[in-house]
Amino acid sequence: MKKENRDKIVALRHDLHCHPELSMQEQETKNRLITFIKENIQLEVIDRGNWFYVQYTTKRQSEMPEADTKPPIAFRADFDALPILEDAESLPYASENPGVSHKCGHDGHASALAGLALELDANGADRDVYLIFQHAEEIGRGAQECVPLIKEKKIAEIYGFHNWSGFPKGAVVLREGVSQCASRGLTITFTGKKSHASIPEQGKNPSVAIAKLILYVQNLLQATTFEQLVLATIVNVEIGTKDFGISAGEGEISFTLRAALQRELDELEQMIRTQAEKFAAEEGLQLSYAYDDPFPETANDAKAIERVRNAAEKLHLPVVELTEPLRASEDFGYYTKECPGAMFYLGNGEDYPALHTPEYDFRDELLELAVNIFRKLI
Amino acid sequence: MKKENRDKIVALRHDLHCHPELSMQEQETKNRLITFIKENIQLEVIDRGNWFYVQYTTKRQSEMPEADTKPPIAFRADFDALPILEDAESLPYASENPGVSHKCGHDGHASALAGLALELDANGADRDVYLIFQHAEEIGRGAQECVPLIKEKKIAEIYGFHNWSGFPKGAVVLREGVSQCASRGLTITFTGKKSHASIPEQGKNPSVAIAKLILYVQNLLQATTFEQLVLATIVNVEIGTKDFGISAGEGEISFTLRAALQRELDELEQMIRTQAEKFAAEEGLQLSYAYDDPFPETANDAKAIERVRNAAEKLHLPVVELTEPLRASEDFGYYTKECPGAMFYLGNGEDYPALHTPEYDFRDELLELAVNIFRKLI
Repeated sequence: MKKENRDKIVALRHDLHCHPELSMQEQETKNRLITFIKENIQLEVIDRGNWFYVQYTTKRQSEMPEADTKPPIAFRADFDALPILEDAESLPYASENPGVSHKCGHDGHASALAGLALELDANGADRDVYLIFQHAEEIGRGAQECVPLIKEKKIAEIYGFHNWSGFPKGAVVLREGVSQCASRGLTITFTGKKSHASIPEQGKNPSVAIAKLILYVQNLLQATTFEQLVLATIVNVEIGTKDFGISAGEGEISFTLRAALQRELDELEQMIRTQAEKFAAEEGLQLSYAYDDPFPETANDAKAIERVRNAAEKLHLPVVELTEPLRASEDFGYYTKECPGAMFYLGNGEDYPALHTPEYDFRDELLELAVNIFRKLI
Repeated sequence: MKKENRDKIVALRHDLHCHPELSMQEQETKNRLITFIKENIQLEVIDRGNWFYVQYTTKRQSEMPEADTKPPIAFRADFDALPILEDAESLPYASENPGVSHKCGHDGHASALAGLALELDANGADRDVYLIFQHAEEIGRGAQECVPLIKEKKIAEIYGFHNWSGFPKGAVVLREGVSQCASRGLTITFTGKKSHASIPEQGKNPSVAIAKLILYVQNLLQATTFEQLVLATIVNVEIGTKDFGISAGEGEISFTLRAALQRELDELEQMIRTQAEKFAAEEGLQLSYAYDDPFPETANDAKAIERVRNAAEKLHLPVVELTEPLRASEDFGYYTKECPGAMFYLGNGEDYPALHTPEYDFRDELLELAVNIFRKLI
């Protein structure tokens, strides 16, 4: 990669970092990326509203038989930020949007993909390449909007990367099969009946049913009858109001369910729902369910992972094989439901600040590394 | 009572009803009452800021020996309203303060006491009389501010009444000893530590400790080892936030504790605190306590109740003896800690809308009834 291009994508990342936007609000981020690409290269940019993609069409030699051309490949980067106050006022490119910041490094992912666009434009490739710039990864929503492109363009394989703290700097971290857990937010609402606090027997207070459910879930996880990692984390309970004259008549409990295997996530949810229904019936309460932030498991194709491993080795990068899935979720798994692919990770350093913490910042030196791996995968 | 005076206090009640104010905000209500009294009578009005009293000083005949005069007596009425939207738009004197209304009938209590002022001014009495117009009864705060007057003026006995639905209209309802339960709002805050929802084992989530406390309290009340009525009603639970990425790190539970006997209220609270501390320790959580709306038990003196009973009989009013305390609380109990006294009740009718409901309105016909009983008690 030429120094000129490297400098351009570092500057691009700093520009994105300075103007972070939350999921579903990333219009300025998208415009900055599109402007960067249009100002620097000739490739076609297709704007899809919330997201966009860049299309590289190979210049086939007329004598090459159709059968010998490789099918289209795609790369994906995400560009939304997080509701976290940045702890980096000394950064020359610190967030100018207080309370919002790129604490997951999506600024780096998007800039690396823009770097691949620069390389493709300059050097070409022997197959069609789609660069997907995706919004709203953090809330598990963006990938679902982009996925139809896979069928539409007959894309045969897809790759993405995420930077990750806790691994050696510059190491390529990977896992065949599931590399990140599936997760979903589940809210269960118990509807009973308010009463005056002095005559609670005339109401239906949901507290006991919710308490039983909390203890059931705790015991369930301690019993560990699951094959792989399963978690049900209580993020929120809201019962009644702070009016001391009123016995609570409604309550809800919200979990984040998480599992290495999609199948076990579904089993876990079904077990919780079955008990919730039992406890609600005991207290004469009505039940309803709501979902937030659904992430599938990130399942990597064996051949695709093998290609990433080979690319890393050709570039003389250290490879770390994950022995178990990372717990955090990623909506890249929606793509690999449609075609083979792989999500790999680039180590930030073993003692680097964790993702989603105020102290974290994407490492600029990973940009060129990612572009080089992408090029080897084409 | 002359028709003229009766009409005046009915008009006064309608005026107060039209302009209800919440506890600690009743300046206009107080001003309307003071204006009414100053415009209609000569008695001294002493403004104490949040509340006021009217003083009747007996015109003793010089020949009457000091020893034969009866000691001062007091009557108390409350004048705050409730955060309830009135369901009575057809009333000519409907609440003009949306969401606030006199759904406990304090407009009637205050107007009846103003009626007693009219009678004292016109007819005199053979002892000093203090009429206490008290604010902020609904939140258990007003009486505590007025109570020092008892010692200051050497008041020997005090009376008050509350209208009450579910008893025959115009019946005098009473109970020697405790007639209304003691209650207090208790909030227990459990402080642990947040973590990412994917690594809950690195945090300290208070859900399990709070769930155990809910089930403990339920079992405690079902076991009923108490002598008299005891209730611990859960009004509110708040744990964590609706951020599905964060395992909850703090939670609180709010109860309204209630008991016929103050001693048993204290025992109940101590039992809950002991268990809360145990459950918090098991999960490595910190604990703190806060209180709201403290009401003592309303304890009626035997002789004072006997005087109310006699007054009712002289007026040929039906008397209902309560077999157990009313569950709702009343801050009149603060006065009877200082001197003998009694709170009695006037029936609104067995099928009359309940207190604290949008449909309820004080019955004008109880005004004269209350004044007549008060006069007999002097």
